[in-house]
Amino acid sequence: MITRKKLVEEINKKGSFLCVGLDPDLKKLPEHLKEVENPIWEFNKAIIDATAPYAVAFKPNWAFYECYGIKGVEALEKTVSYIKSQYPEIMVIADAKRGDIGNTAAMYAKAVFENMSCDAVTLAPYMGRDSVQPFMDYEGHWCIVLALTSNKSASDFETLELAGGDRMYEQVLEVSSKWGTDENTMYVVGATQAESLDRVREIVPTHFLLVPGVGAQGGSLEEVARYGMTEDCGLLVNSSRGIIYASSGTDFAEAAAREAEKLAKAMAELLQACR
Amino acid sequence: MITRKKLVEEINKKGSFLCVGLDPDLKKLPEHLKEVENPIWEFNKAIIDATAPYAVAFKPNWAFYECYGIKGVEALEKTVSYIKSQYPEIMVIADAKRGDIGNTAAMYAKAVFENMSCDAVTLAPYMGRDSVQPFMDYEGHWCIVLALTSNKSASDFETLELAGGDRMYEQVLEVSSKWGTDENTMYVVGATQAESLDRVREIVPTHFLLVPGVGAQGGSLEEVARYGMTEDCGLLVNSSRGIIYASSGTDFAEAAAREAEKLAKAMAELLQACR
Repeated sequence: MITRKKLVEEINKKGSFLCVGLDPDLKKLPEHLKEVENPIWEFNKAIIDATAPYAVAFKPNWAFYECYGIKGVEALEKTVSYIKSQYPEIMVIADAKRGDIGNTAAMYAKAVFENMSCDAVTLAPYMGRDSVQPFMDYEGHWCIVLALTSNKSASDFETLELAGGDRMYEQVLEVSSKWGTDENTMYVVGATQAESLDRVREIVPTHFLLVPGVGAQGGSLEEVARYGMTEDCGLLVNSSRGIIYASSGTDFAEAAAREAEKLAKAMAELLQACR
Repeated sequence: MITRKKLVEEINKKGSFLCVGLDPDLKKLPEHLKEVENPIWEFNKAIIDATAPYAVAFKPNWAFYECYGIKGVEALEKTVSYIKSQYPEIMVIADAKRGDIGNTAAMYAKAVFENMSCDAVTLAPYMGRDSVQPFMDYEGHWCIVLALTSNKSASDFETLELAGGDRMYEQVLEVSSKWGTDENTMYVVGATQAESLDRVREIVPTHFLLVPGVGAQGGSLEEVARYGMTEDCGLLVNSSRGIIYASSGTDFAEAAAREAEKLAKAMAELLQACR
Protein backbone atom coordinates (compact mmCIF):
# COMPACT_ATOMS: atom_id res chain seq x y z
CA MET A 1 0.00 0.00 0.00
CA ILE A 2 1.63 3.24 -1.13
CA THR A 3 0.19 6.22 0.70
CA ARG A 4 0.86 9.77 -0.36
CA LYS A 5 3.33 10.07 2.50
CA LYS A 6 5.26 7.01 1.31
CA LEU A 7 5.23 8.22 -2.27
CA VAL A 8 6.63 11.61 -1.28
CA GLU A 9 9.31 9.94 0.88
CA GLU A 10 10.36 7.85 -2.11
CA ILE A 11 10.48 10.93 -4.34
CA ASN A 12 12.68 12.73 -1.84
CA LYS A 13 14.93 9.73 -1.27
CA LYS A 14 15.54 9.18 -4.98
CA GLY A 15 15.39 12.84 -5.99
CA SER A 16 13.11 11.70 -8.78
CA PHE A 17 9.47 11.74 -9.74
CA LEU A 18 9.95 9.43 -12.69
CA CYS A 19 7.38 6.89 -13.75
CA VAL A 20 8.70 4.33 -16.23
CA GLY A 21 6.08 3.19 -18.72
CA LEU A 22 6.27 -0.51 -19.56
CA ASP A 23 4.81 -0.69 -23.08
CA PRO A 24 6.63 -3.69 -24.59
CA ASP A 25 6.04 -4.01 -28.31
CA LEU A 26 7.32 -7.35 -29.64
CA LYS A 27 8.31 -5.67 -32.90
CA LYS A 28 10.59 -3.24 -31.09
CA LEU A 29 12.28 -5.66 -28.69
CA PRO A 30 16.01 -6.32 -29.14
CA GLU A 31 16.63 -9.15 -31.62
CA HIS A 32 18.43 -11.40 -29.14
CA LEU A 33 15.33 -11.43 -26.89
CA LYS A 34 12.98 -12.63 -29.58
CA GLU A 35 14.24 -16.22 -29.22
CA VAL A 36 13.71 -16.62 -25.48
CA GLU A 37 10.65 -18.34 -23.99
CA ASN A 38 8.83 -15.18 -22.87
CA PRO A 39 10.46 -12.14 -24.51
CA ILE A 40 8.16 -9.54 -22.93
CA TRP A 41 8.79 -10.79 -19.43
CA GLU A 42 12.56 -11.00 -19.94
CA PHE A 43 12.57 -7.51 -21.44
CA ASN A 44 10.49 -6.05 -18.61
CA LYS A 45 12.54 -7.72 -15.89
CA ALA A 46 15.76 -6.26 -17.29
CA ILE A 47 14.20 -2.80 -17.71
CA ILE A 48 12.78 -2.87 -14.18
CA ASP A 49 16.07 -3.87 -12.55
CA ALA A 50 17.97 -1.28 -14.59
CA THR A 51 15.64 1.65 -13.95
CA ALA A 52 14.37 0.93 -10.41
CA PRO A 53 17.04 3.16 -8.80
CA TYR A 54 15.63 6.15 -10.68
CA ALA A 55 11.90 5.39 -10.67
CA VAL A 56 9.17 5.95 -8.09
CA ALA A 57 6.52 4.29 -10.25
CA PHE A 58 6.18 1.73 -13.02
CA LYS A 59 3.25 1.97 -15.39
CA PRO A 60 2.50 -1.11 -17.48
CA ASN A 61 0.16 -0.22 -20.31
CA TRP A 62 -2.50 -2.94 -20.39
CA ALA A 63 -3.00 -2.79 -24.18
CA PHE A 64 0.57 -3.92 -24.82
CA TYR A 65 -0.13 -7.18 -22.96
CA GLU A 66 -3.73 -7.83 -23.95
CA CYS A 67 -2.78 -7.82 -27.60
CA TYR A 68 -0.76 -11.02 -27.04
CA GLY A 69 -3.63 -12.88 -25.38
CA ILE A 70 -2.91 -15.37 -22.58
CA LYS A 71 0.87 -15.10 -23.06
CA GLY A 72 0.63 -11.34 -22.71
CA VAL A 73 -1.47 -11.54 -19.57
CA GLU A 74 1.02 -14.03 -18.11
CA ALA A 75 3.86 -11.61 -18.79
CA LEU A 76 1.85 -8.80 -17.20
CA GLU A 77 1.10 -10.81 -14.06
CA LYS A 78 4.76 -11.79 -13.74
CA THR A 79 5.85 -8.18 -14.29
CA VAL A 80 3.59 -6.72 -11.62
CA SER A 81 4.33 -9.41 -9.07
CA TYR A 82 8.07 -9.03 -9.70
CA ILE A 83 7.92 -5.29 -9.01
CA LYS A 84 5.78 -5.78 -5.89
CA SER A 85 8.14 -8.42 -4.48
CA GLN A 86 11.48 -6.85 -5.42
CA TYR A 87 10.67 -3.15 -5.17
CA PRO A 88 7.67 -2.82 -2.84
CA GLU A 89 8.36 0.88 -2.36
CA ILE A 90 7.72 1.57 -6.06
CA MET A 91 4.14 2.29 -7.11
CA VAL A 92 2.60 0.12 -9.82
CA ILE A 93 0.09 1.93 -11.98
CA ALA A 94 -2.26 -0.15 -14.12
CA ASP A 95 -2.56 2.02 -17.21
CA ALA A 96 -5.84 0.53 -18.30
CA LYS A 97 -8.14 3.57 -18.71
CA ARG A 98 -11.16 1.61 -17.55
CA GLY A 99 -14.64 3.10 -17.25
CA ASP A 100 -17.99 1.32 -17.00
CA ILE A 101 -21.18 1.18 -14.91
CA GLY A 102 -20.93 0.29 -11.22
CA ASN A 103 -21.25 -3.49 -11.23
CA THR A 104 -18.75 -3.74 -14.09
CA ALA A 105 -16.39 -1.19 -12.59
CA ALA A 106 -16.33 -3.33 -9.44
CA MET A 107 -15.07 -6.26 -11.53
CA TYR A 108 -12.38 -4.12 -13.16
CA ALA A 109 -11.34 -2.91 -9.71
CA LYS A 110 -11.06 -6.53 -8.58
CA ALA A 111 -8.95 -7.31 -11.66
CA VAL A 112 -6.39 -4.55 -11.14
CA PHE A 113 -6.32 -4.24 -7.34
CA GLU A 114 -6.91 -7.82 -6.18
CA ASN A 115 -5.90 -10.09 -9.00
CA MET A 116 -3.00 -7.94 -10.20
CA SER A 117 -2.15 -6.21 -6.90
CA CYS A 118 -1.58 -2.84 -8.52
CA ASP A 119 -1.46 0.32 -6.40
CA ALA A 120 -3.21 2.60 -8.87
CA VAL A 121 -5.27 2.54 -12.06
CA THR A 122 -6.01 5.06 -14.80
CA LEU A 123 -9.74 5.70 -15.35
CA ALA A 124 -11.85 7.38 -18.03
CA PRO A 125 -14.36 9.85 -16.57
CA TYR A 126 -17.01 9.92 -19.32
CA MET A 127 -19.60 7.77 -17.50
CA GLY A 128 -19.32 9.72 -14.26
CA ARG A 129 -19.05 8.86 -10.60
CA ASP A 130 -20.57 5.34 -10.81
CA SER A 131 -17.65 4.30 -12.95
CA VAL A 132 -15.00 5.55 -10.50
CA GLN A 133 -16.52 4.87 -7.07
CA PRO A 134 -15.92 1.09 -6.99
CA PHE A 135 -12.19 1.74 -7.43
CA MET A 136 -12.24 4.36 -4.67
CA ASP A 137 -13.81 1.79 -2.36
CA TYR A 138 -10.42 0.05 -2.22
CA GLU A 139 -8.69 1.76 0.65
CA GLY A 140 -5.02 2.58 0.16
CA HIS A 141 -5.30 2.50 -3.63
CA TRP A 142 -5.24 5.29 -6.18
CA CYS A 143 -7.65 6.35 -8.93
CA ILE A 144 -5.92 8.31 -11.68
CA VAL A 145 -8.64 10.03 -13.67
CA LEU A 146 -8.10 11.30 -17.22
CA ALA A 147 -8.36 15.08 -17.30
CA LEU A 148 -6.41 16.63 -20.17
CA THR A 149 -4.52 14.06 -22.23
CA SER A 150 -1.38 14.44 -24.31
CA ASN A 151 -2.82 13.45 -27.69
CA LYS A 152 -3.80 15.85 -30.45
CA SER A 153 -7.47 14.97 -30.43
CA ALA A 154 -7.79 15.87 -26.76
CA SER A 155 -9.33 18.98 -28.34
CA ASP A 156 -12.26 16.97 -29.75
CA PHE A 157 -14.06 16.79 -26.41
CA GLU A 158 -11.76 17.45 -23.42
CA THR A 159 -11.35 21.14 -24.11
CA LEU A 160 -14.90 21.89 -25.26
CA GLU A 161 -16.36 24.97 -23.61
CA LEU A 162 -19.35 24.33 -21.39
CA ALA A 163 -22.35 26.62 -20.94
CA GLY A 164 -20.99 27.79 -17.58
CA GLY A 165 -17.69 28.87 -19.15
CA ASP A 166 -15.56 25.95 -17.97
CA ARG A 167 -13.80 23.59 -20.32
CA MET A 168 -14.88 19.96 -20.12
CA TYR A 169 -11.61 18.84 -18.44
CA GLU A 170 -11.99 21.62 -15.87
CA GLN A 171 -15.43 20.31 -15.00
CA VAL A 172 -14.01 16.78 -14.73
CA LEU A 173 -11.43 18.09 -12.26
CA GLU A 174 -13.95 20.12 -10.27
CA VAL A 175 -16.57 17.41 -10.00
CA SER A 176 -14.42 14.31 -9.59
CA SER A 177 -12.04 15.88 -7.06
CA LYS A 178 -15.00 15.88 -4.67
CA TRP A 179 -15.53 12.11 -5.02
CA GLY A 180 -12.28 11.37 -3.22
CA THR A 181 -9.32 13.24 -1.77
CA ASP A 182 -5.76 14.08 -2.77
CA GLU A 183 -4.78 10.94 -0.86
CA ASN A 184 -6.56 8.58 -3.27
CA THR A 185 -7.08 10.53 -6.49
CA MET A 186 -4.63 11.74 -9.13
CA TYR A 187 -5.16 13.19 -12.60
CA VAL A 188 -3.67 12.54 -16.01
CA VAL A 189 -2.51 15.80 -17.57
CA GLY A 190 -0.36 15.55 -20.69
CA ALA A 191 3.04 17.22 -20.78
CA THR A 192 2.11 18.57 -24.19
CA GLN A 193 -0.53 20.66 -22.37
CA ALA A 194 1.95 22.40 -20.02
CA GLU A 195 0.38 25.82 -20.54
CA SER A 196 -2.89 24.44 -19.16
CA LEU A 197 -1.21 23.17 -15.99
CA ASP A 198 -1.66 26.62 -14.48
CA ARG A 199 -5.41 26.25 -14.80
CA VAL A 200 -5.29 22.64 -13.58
CA ARG A 201 -3.47 23.80 -10.45
CA GLU A 202 -6.14 26.44 -9.75
CA ILE A 203 -8.73 23.67 -9.55
CA VAL A 204 -6.67 20.89 -7.94
CA PRO A 205 -3.81 22.67 -6.17
CA THR A 206 -2.64 19.65 -4.17
CA HIS A 207 -3.54 16.52 -6.16
CA PHE A 208 -0.75 14.48 -7.69
CA LEU A 209 -0.69 14.62 -11.49
CA LEU A 210 0.45 11.78 -13.71
CA VAL A 211 2.08 13.46 -16.68
CA PRO A 212 2.74 11.47 -19.84
CA GLY A 213 4.06 12.96 -23.04
CA VAL A 214 7.62 13.89 -22.09
CA GLY A 215 9.94 12.41 -24.71
CA ALA A 216 8.41 10.72 -27.76
CA GLN A 217 5.35 12.97 -27.61
CA GLY A 218 7.37 16.20 -27.29
CA GLY A 219 6.46 17.62 -23.86
CA SER A 220 9.01 19.57 -21.77
CA LEU A 221 9.95 18.45 -18.26
CA GLU A 222 10.91 21.98 -17.21
CA GLU A 223 7.57 23.42 -18.29
CA VAL A 224 5.70 20.67 -16.48
CA ALA A 225 7.62 21.36 -13.26
CA ARG A 226 7.25 25.14 -13.59
CA TYR A 227 3.46 25.00 -13.82
CA GLY A 228 2.63 21.76 -12.07
CA MET A 229 4.95 21.21 -9.11
CA THR A 230 3.59 21.51 -5.57
CA GLU A 231 5.32 21.75 -2.20
CA ASP A 232 5.60 17.98 -1.95
CA CYS A 233 6.26 17.58 -5.69
CA GLY A 234 2.75 16.57 -6.75
CA LEU A 235 3.99 15.14 -10.02
CA LEU A 236 4.71 11.77 -11.55
CA VAL A 237 6.24 12.28 -14.96
CA ASN A 238 6.07 9.27 -17.23
CA SER A 239 8.44 8.25 -19.96
CA SER A 240 7.91 5.02 -21.88
CA ARG A 241 9.43 4.82 -25.34
CA GLY A 242 12.26 7.27 -24.57
CA ILE A 243 13.56 4.91 -21.88
CA ILE A 244 12.65 1.37 -22.81
CA TYR A 245 13.68 1.67 -26.46
CA ALA A 246 16.80 3.78 -25.87
CA SER A 247 18.77 1.00 -27.53
CA SER A 248 17.64 -1.99 -29.57
CA GLY A 249 20.89 -3.86 -28.96
CA THR A 250 22.06 -6.21 -26.22
CA ASP A 251 22.77 -3.09 -24.14
CA PHE A 252 19.06 -2.09 -24.04
CA ALA A 253 18.87 -2.27 -20.23
CA GLU A 254 22.00 -0.17 -19.69
CA ALA A 255 20.76 2.36 -22.22
CA ALA A 256 17.38 2.48 -20.45
CA ALA A 257 19.17 3.05 -17.14
CA ARG A 258 21.16 5.92 -18.68
CA GLU A 259 18.00 7.61 -20.00
CA ALA A 260 16.19 7.12 -16.70
CA GLU A 261 19.19 8.50 -14.81
CA LYS A 262 19.32 11.52 -17.12
CA LEU A 263 15.67 12.30 -16.47
CA ALA A 264 16.06 11.68 -12.73
CA LYS A 265 19.01 14.11 -12.59
CA ALA A 266 16.98 16.80 -14.29
CA MET A 267 14.16 16.06 -11.86
CA ALA A 268 16.48 16.31 -8.84
CA GLU A 269 17.47 19.79 -9.96
CA LEU A 270 13.87 20.83 -10.43
CA LEU A 271 12.98 19.47 -6.98
CA GLN A 272 15.91 21.40 -5.48
CA ALA A 273 14.94 24.61 -7.23
CA CYS A 274 11.46 24.28 -5.80
CA ARG A 275 12.61 23.97 -2.17
CA MET B 1 -17.17 -10.24 -40.97
CA ILE B 2 -20.69 -9.02 -40.20
CA THR B 3 -21.68 -6.18 -42.48
CA ARG B 4 -24.74 -4.05 -41.83
CA LYS B 5 -26.52 -5.97 -44.57
CA LYS B 6 -25.78 -9.30 -42.90
CA LEU B 7 -26.81 -7.98 -39.51
CA VAL B 8 -30.14 -6.75 -40.85
CA GLU B 9 -30.72 -10.09 -42.62
CA GLU B 10 -30.15 -11.90 -39.33
CA ILE B 11 -32.53 -9.55 -37.52
CA ASN B 12 -35.22 -10.19 -40.12
CA LYS B 13 -34.63 -13.94 -40.16
CA LYS B 14 -34.89 -14.27 -36.39
CA GLY B 15 -37.44 -11.51 -35.87
CA SER B 16 -35.17 -10.33 -33.09
CA PHE B 17 -32.68 -7.58 -32.32
CA LEU B 18 -31.55 -9.16 -29.09
CA CYS B 19 -27.98 -8.96 -27.85
CA VAL B 20 -27.24 -11.37 -24.99
CA GLY B 21 -24.72 -9.98 -22.52
CA LEU B 22 -22.28 -12.57 -21.21
CA ASP B 23 -21.30 -11.21 -17.77
CA PRO B 24 -20.55 -14.37 -15.81
CA ASP B 25 -20.09 -13.71 -12.11
CA LEU B 26 -18.71 -16.78 -10.30
CA LYS B 27 -20.77 -15.91 -7.23
CA LYS B 28 -24.00 -16.06 -9.21
CA LEU B 29 -23.37 -19.24 -11.18
CA PRO B 30 -25.53 -22.28 -10.45
CA GLU B 31 -24.08 -24.36 -7.60
CA HIS B 32 -23.62 -27.51 -9.69
CA LEU B 33 -21.31 -25.63 -12.08
CA LYS B 34 -18.93 -24.47 -9.39
CA GLU B 35 -17.28 -27.88 -9.23
CA VAL B 36 -16.42 -28.26 -12.92
CA GLU B 37 -12.97 -27.48 -14.34
CA ASN B 38 -13.85 -24.15 -15.94
CA PRO B 39 -17.24 -22.97 -14.60
CA ILE B 40 -17.38 -19.74 -16.61
CA TRP B 41 -16.76 -21.49 -19.90
CA GLU B 42 -19.29 -24.26 -19.16
CA PHE B 43 -21.83 -21.65 -18.12
CA ASN B 44 -21.27 -19.54 -21.23
CA LYS B 45 -21.38 -22.50 -23.59
CA ALA B 46 -24.76 -23.58 -22.21
CA ILE B 47 -26.13 -20.02 -22.33
CA ILE B 48 -24.89 -19.50 -25.88
CA ASP B 49 -26.42 -22.74 -27.19
CA ALA B 50 -29.69 -22.03 -25.40
CA THR B 51 -30.10 -18.42 -26.53
CA ALA B 52 -28.50 -18.47 -30.02
CA PRO B 53 -31.87 -19.04 -31.76
CA TYR B 54 -33.11 -15.72 -30.35
CA ALA B 55 -29.94 -13.59 -30.46
CA VAL B 56 -28.29 -11.60 -33.23
CA ALA B 57 -25.35 -10.60 -31.03
CA PHE B 58 -23.44 -11.79 -27.98
CA LYS B 59 -21.66 -9.25 -25.82
CA PRO B 60 -19.08 -10.60 -23.39
CA ASN B 61 -18.22 -7.94 -20.83
CA TRP B 62 -14.42 -7.92 -20.53
CA ALA B 63 -14.38 -7.00 -16.83
CA PHE B 64 -16.12 -10.23 -15.86
CA TYR B 65 -13.24 -12.23 -17.34
CA GLU B 66 -10.27 -10.00 -16.46
CA CYS B 67 -11.15 -10.20 -12.80
CA TYR B 68 -10.28 -13.93 -12.84
CA GLY B 69 -6.85 -13.40 -14.40
CA ILE B 70 -5.47 -16.00 -16.82
CA LYS B 71 -8.33 -18.42 -16.18
CA GLY B 72 -10.80 -15.68 -17.01
CA VAL B 73 -9.02 -14.75 -20.22
CA GLU B 74 -8.92 -18.41 -21.21
CA ALA B 75 -12.68 -18.66 -20.68
CA LEU B 76 -13.16 -15.48 -22.72
CA GLU B 77 -11.04 -16.75 -25.63
CA LYS B 78 -12.91 -20.06 -25.62
CA THR B 79 -16.25 -18.26 -25.47
CA VAL B 80 -15.56 -15.99 -28.43
CA SER B 81 -14.04 -18.71 -30.57
CA TYR B 82 -16.98 -21.01 -29.79
CA ILE B 83 -19.47 -18.40 -30.97
CA LYS B 84 -17.46 -17.62 -34.11
CA SER B 85 -17.18 -21.30 -35.03
CA GLN B 86 -20.69 -22.48 -34.12
CA TYR B 87 -22.73 -19.36 -34.88
CA PRO B 88 -20.73 -17.31 -37.40
CA GLU B 89 -23.83 -15.30 -38.32
CA ILE B 90 -24.06 -13.88 -34.77
CA MET B 91 -22.10 -10.71 -34.03
CA VAL B 92 -19.62 -10.79 -31.14
CA ILE B 93 -19.25 -7.47 -29.36
CA ALA B 94 -16.24 -6.96 -27.11
CA ASP B 95 -17.72 -4.85 -24.35
CA ALA B 96 -14.41 -3.43 -23.24
CA LYS B 97 -14.96 0.35 -23.35
CA ARG B 98 -11.39 0.99 -24.40
CA GLY B 99 -9.98 4.45 -25.07
CA ASP B 100 -6.35 5.56 -25.27
CA ILE B 101 -3.89 7.45 -27.50
CA GLY B 102 -3.24 6.19 -31.02
CA ASN B 103 -0.34 3.79 -30.53
CA THR B 104 -2.08 2.20 -27.55
CA ALA B 105 -5.48 2.12 -29.23
CA ALA B 106 -3.83 0.19 -32.07
CA MET B 107 -2.76 -2.46 -29.56
CA TYR B 108 -6.25 -2.70 -28.07
CA ALA B 109 -7.65 -3.02 -31.60
CA LYS B 110 -5.22 -5.87 -32.23
CA ALA B 111 -6.32 -7.50 -28.97
CA VAL B 112 -10.06 -7.48 -29.71
CA PHE B 113 -10.12 -7.79 -33.50
CA GLU B 114 -7.11 -10.01 -34.23
CA ASN B 115 -6.36 -11.94 -31.08
CA MET B 116 -9.99 -12.36 -30.01
CA SER B 117 -11.63 -12.17 -33.48
CA CYS B 118 -14.53 -10.04 -32.28
CA ASP B 119 -16.71 -8.19 -34.77
CA ALA B 120 -17.23 -5.06 -32.69
CA VAL B 121 -15.91 -3.23 -29.64
CA THR B 122 -17.33 -0.61 -27.29
CA LEU B 123 -15.19 2.55 -27.02
CA ALA B 124 -15.03 5.55 -24.69
CA PRO B 125 -14.94 8.86 -26.59
CA TYR B 126 -13.27 11.13 -24.02
CA MET B 127 -9.81 11.24 -25.67
CA GLY B 128 -11.21 12.00 -29.11
CA ARG B 129 -10.62 10.72 -32.62
CA ASP B 130 -7.05 9.38 -32.03
CA SER B 131 -8.49 6.86 -29.64
CA VAL B 132 -11.11 5.54 -32.08
CA GLN B 133 -9.39 5.72 -35.48
CA PRO B 134 -7.11 2.65 -35.04
CA PHE B 135 -10.23 0.53 -34.49
CA MET B 136 -11.90 2.04 -37.57
CA ASP B 137 -8.86 1.07 -39.62
CA TYR B 138 -10.00 -2.56 -39.34
CA GLU B 139 -12.27 -2.97 -42.33
CA GLY B 140 -15.46 -4.93 -41.73
CA HIS B 141 -15.41 -4.32 -37.99
CA TRP B 142 -17.57 -2.10 -35.82
CA CYS B 143 -16.77 0.70 -33.36
CA ILE B 144 -19.53 1.19 -30.79
CA VAL B 145 -18.94 4.56 -29.18
CA LEU B 146 -20.41 5.50 -25.80
CA ALA B 147 -22.90 8.32 -26.23
CA LEU B 148 -25.53 8.38 -23.47
CA THR B 149 -25.14 5.52 -21.00
CA SER B 150 -27.74 3.83 -18.82
CA ASN B 151 -26.20 4.60 -15.41
CA LYS B 152 -27.37 7.31 -13.06
CA SER B 153 -24.15 9.31 -13.15
CA ALA B 154 -24.38 9.68 -16.91
CA SER B 155 -25.57 13.12 -15.82
CA ASP B 156 -22.15 14.00 -14.34
CA PHE B 157 -20.58 14.71 -17.72
CA GLU B 158 -22.51 13.15 -20.63
CA THR B 159 -25.47 15.51 -20.40
CA LEU B 160 -23.55 18.71 -19.55
CA GLU B 161 -24.62 21.66 -21.66
CA LEU B 162 -21.94 23.06 -23.94
CA ALA B 163 -21.43 26.70 -24.84
CA GLY B 164 -23.04 26.13 -28.25
CA GLY B 165 -26.20 24.74 -26.65
CA ASP B 166 -25.58 21.04 -27.34
CA ARG B 167 -25.27 18.46 -24.62
CA MET B 168 -21.92 16.69 -24.39
CA TYR B 169 -23.33 13.39 -25.74
CA GLU B 170 -24.91 15.25 -28.66
CA GLN B 171 -21.51 16.67 -29.54
CA VAL B 172 -19.99 13.18 -29.28
CA LEU B 173 -22.60 11.94 -31.76
CA GLU B 174 -22.18 14.88 -34.12
CA VAL B 175 -18.38 14.83 -34.18
CA SER B 176 -17.68 11.10 -34.07
CA SER B 177 -20.33 10.18 -36.65
CA LYS B 178 -18.11 11.97 -39.18
CA TRP B 179 -15.09 9.76 -38.37
CA GLY B 180 -16.76 6.72 -39.90
CA THR B 181 -20.09 5.74 -41.41
CA ASP B 182 -23.24 3.94 -40.35
CA GLU B 183 -21.62 0.82 -41.78
CA ASN B 184 -18.82 0.74 -39.19
CA THR B 185 -20.00 2.88 -36.26
CA MET B 186 -22.73 2.32 -33.69
CA TYR B 187 -23.56 4.15 -30.46
CA VAL B 188 -24.33 3.08 -26.92
CA VAL B 189 -27.54 4.72 -25.72
CA GLY B 190 -29.04 3.42 -22.49
CA ALA B 191 -32.63 2.17 -22.44
CA THR B 192 -33.12 4.22 -19.28
CA GLN B 193 -32.63 7.29 -21.49
CA ALA B 194 -35.47 6.45 -23.90
CA GLU B 195 -36.85 9.98 -23.94
CA SER B 196 -33.47 11.19 -25.28
CA LEU B 197 -33.58 8.72 -28.17
CA ASP B 198 -35.64 11.22 -30.13
CA ARG B 199 -32.76 13.67 -29.97
CA VAL B 200 -30.22 10.92 -30.71
CA ARG B 201 -32.15 10.03 -33.86
CA GLU B 202 -32.11 13.66 -35.02
CA ILE B 203 -28.30 13.54 -35.02
CA VAL B 204 -27.70 9.96 -36.14
CA PRO B 205 -30.88 8.94 -37.97
CA THR B 206 -29.46 5.77 -39.49
CA HIS B 207 -26.71 4.48 -37.17
CA PHE B 208 -27.31 1.29 -35.26
CA LEU B 209 -27.66 1.83 -31.51
CA LEU B 210 -26.58 -0.67 -28.88
CA VAL B 211 -29.06 -0.27 -26.07
CA PRO B 212 -28.28 -1.73 -22.65
CA GLY B 213 -30.45 -1.21 -19.60
CA VAL B 214 -33.55 -3.22 -20.47
CA GLY B 215 -34.28 -5.54 -17.55
CA ALA B 216 -32.17 -5.23 -14.38
CA GLN B 217 -31.62 -1.52 -15.00
CA GLY B 218 -35.30 -0.76 -15.62
CA GLY B 219 -35.48 0.41 -19.25
CA SER B 220 -38.53 -0.32 -21.42
CA LEU B 221 -38.22 -2.19 -24.71
CA GLU B 222 -41.34 -0.56 -26.14
CA GLU B 223 -40.07 2.95 -25.45
CA VAL B 224 -36.71 2.13 -27.00
CA ALA B 225 -38.39 0.84 -30.15
CA ARG B 226 -40.81 3.77 -30.33
CA TYR B 227 -38.06 6.39 -30.29
CA GLY B 228 -35.09 4.49 -31.66
CA MET B 229 -36.18 2.10 -34.41
CA THR B 230 -35.25 2.83 -38.01
CA GLU B 231 -36.45 1.32 -41.29
CA ASP B 232 -33.96 -1.53 -41.05
CA CYS B 233 -34.34 -1.79 -37.27
CA GLY B 234 -31.20 0.14 -36.26
CA LEU B 235 -31.25 -1.32 -32.77
CA LEU B 236 -29.45 -3.98 -30.79
CA VAL B 237 -31.08 -4.26 -27.39
CA ASN B 238 -28.94 -5.95 -24.77
CA SER B 239 -30.03 -7.98 -21.81
CA SER B 240 -27.47 -9.60 -19.52
CA ARG B 241 -28.57 -10.37 -15.99
CA GLY B 242 -32.26 -10.78 -16.90
CA ILE B 243 -31.37 -13.67 -19.21
CA ILE B 244 -28.26 -15.37 -17.88
CA TYR B 245 -29.41 -15.44 -14.24
CA ALA B 246 -33.07 -16.25 -14.95
CA SER B 247 -32.58 -19.37 -12.83
CA SER B 248 -29.77 -20.37 -10.49
CA GLY B 249 -30.68 -24.05 -10.68
CA THR B 250 -29.69 -26.86 -13.04
CA ASP B 251 -32.30 -25.46 -15.46
CA PHE B 252 -30.39 -22.16 -15.88
CA ALA B 253 -29.93 -22.63 -19.64
CA GLU B 254 -33.59 -23.47 -20.29
CA ALA B 255 -34.63 -20.50 -18.16
CA ALA B 256 -32.26 -18.25 -20.11
CA ALA B 257 -33.75 -19.53 -23.36
CA ARG B 258 -37.26 -18.78 -22.11
CA GLU B 259 -36.31 -15.20 -21.19
CA ALA B 260 -34.52 -14.66 -24.49
CA GLU B 261 -37.50 -16.10 -26.38
CA LYS B 262 -39.86 -13.80 -24.48
CA LEU B 263 -37.79 -10.74 -25.41
CA ALA B 264 -37.44 -11.91 -29.00
CA LYS B 265 -41.21 -12.36 -29.30
CA ALA B 266 -41.79 -8.81 -28.07
CA MET B 267 -39.14 -7.65 -30.53
CA ALA B 268 -40.79 -9.49 -33.42
CA GLU B 269 -44.04 -7.65 -32.70
CA LEU B 270 -42.25 -4.31 -32.58
CA LEU B 271 -40.49 -5.08 -35.86
CA GLN B 272 -43.83 -6.00 -37.43
CA ALA B 273 -45.51 -2.84 -36.17
CA CYS B 274 -42.73 -0.80 -37.74
CA ARG B 275 -43.13 -2.29 -41.22
